[in-house]
Amino acid sequence: MSSAPERRLRADRARQAADVIRRQVVDRAYPDGVLPDEHFLAVEFATSRNTIREALDLLREEGLIERVPGVGTLVVTEKYPHGLEELMGLAETLHEHGEVTNDVRAAGPVKAPSSVARRLGLAEGEPVLYVERLRRLNGLPLSLDLTYLAPDVGAPLLTQDLRNRDIFALIEQTSGRRLGTASVALEAVNADLHSATVLEVPRGAALLVVERLSHFTDGRPVDLEFIRMRGDRLTMSAVCRRTHR
Amino acid sequence: MSSAPERRLRADRARQAADVIRRQVVDRAYPDGVLPDEHFLAVEFATSRNTIREALDLLREEGLIERVPGVGTLVVTEKYPHGLEELMGLAETLHEHGEVTNDVRAAGPVKAPSSVARRLGLAEGEPVLYVERLRRLNGLPLSLDLTYLAPDVGAPLLTQDLRNRDIFALIEQTSGRRLGTASVALEAVNADLHSATVLEVPRGAALLVVERLSHFTDGRPVDLEFIRMRGDRLTMSAVCRRTHR
Repeated sequence: MSSAPERRLRADRARQAADVIRRQVVDRAYPDGVLPDEHFLAVEFATSRNTIREALDLLREEGLIERVPGVGTLVVTEKYPHGLEELMGLAETLHEHGEVTNDVRAAGPVKAPSSVARRLGLAEGEPVLYVERLRRLNGLPLSLDLTYLAPDVGAPLLTQDLRNRDIFALIEQTSGRRLGTASVALEAVNADLHSATVLEVPRGAALLVVERLSHFTDGRPVDLEFIRMRGDRLTMSAVCRRTHR
Repeated sequence: MSSAPERRLRADRARQAADVIRRQVVDRAYPDGVLPDEHFLAVEFATSRNTIREALDLLREEGLIERVPGVGTLVVTEKYPHGLEELMGLAETLHEHGEVTNDVRAAGPVKAPSSVARRLGLAEGEPVLYVERLRRLNGLPLSLDLTYLAPDVGAPLLTQDLRNRDIFALIEQTSGRRLGTASVALEAVNADLHSATVLEVPRGAALLVVERLSHFTDGRPVDLEFIRMRGDRLTMSAVCRRTHR
């Protein structure tokens, strides 16, 4: 049974307000990063101050805001936008937010597991270049990327500056070819203990897990990545189009 | 310092194998939903059986697979694909996987908070139609959707079958107009206690949080949604294109 929106549980009304406020917080829409006071928000959302307090508690739990006595409620998130529809490296995407560096945890040839070989259009067991990087923005971990590259595309990267440059840019530079499209699959997953340790988040923290297969403009698949992004540090955006059949 | 891929910690090698296997599991690529045995996987990933066991533990923790004594390791995920690039309602998207029903938790007019009014191109304080639905696939909770609709578009929906039909389909039917594009923002967030209870997941479970603003084909924004999807039940896919400047 549905009911009038104002007659629901306080927890439901708090979530409703929190969702609208969290978008403003993530979009950095509050001037100087200071939220309006509780009284103002209560009027704005036509609800009680207790409901607003509960809404702000939800956002504090997520690490998006903090209450500073004598100052008010401040935006403290270090969440940054990442466009999904444009295929871009992290450093390209986040250049205005700071410096991306990569801890290269592994780089070298591996035998391609059959599903990896198939997706890269290679024969089973063919060697591929495997690169594992912990990516940081201004020193803080952002994502853990496991990358498989077609051998002819990957090998020249071993002598390149993998610490400071995006793999996309290096591929285009060393191959002289352009990347075109990528197919992407996206999931929310709780961090296992070891990944949590590497990414410096609590065990169980929500991660955005992305699998991305990137192709040259001629359609040849060359770069398969498995990416774990910290949910508290990245937000993805995209545009969808309705197809009418 | 980077190192050869085969000389890393077992936990790193386990994650590497788990990522490849998890994609096969989510894509339902294993015949009859039965994973190859540990020995086969150890050869496939050129690693030890202990590493494979640890990889399978990670996927079991996520609820994707289960070990059945005497049978082997089975795919047990109820995760379904949702295309990001096509703007589709959930029932449209998942029709081949089962029946989508909606618990309508609230439906009625509310005063639009200013950021909601702004995004819908309305005057501040104008009433909008608010609809809150818990969406289920074959009876199991899938997502909790909070929807704000422009008043002229929303009002006719109150007499429609919100329990069994997608809001997108109802909007197009009652307005006689077509939806065009939507802008989408996507995040991974840990479930708060109350949302977890509603979605029937443990507190802290990873959710995919989506904010989506949908427009008519003429560009007018009419439908603003805040969606919490269970991370263990939905995976999103998209295609990105590289733009060369």
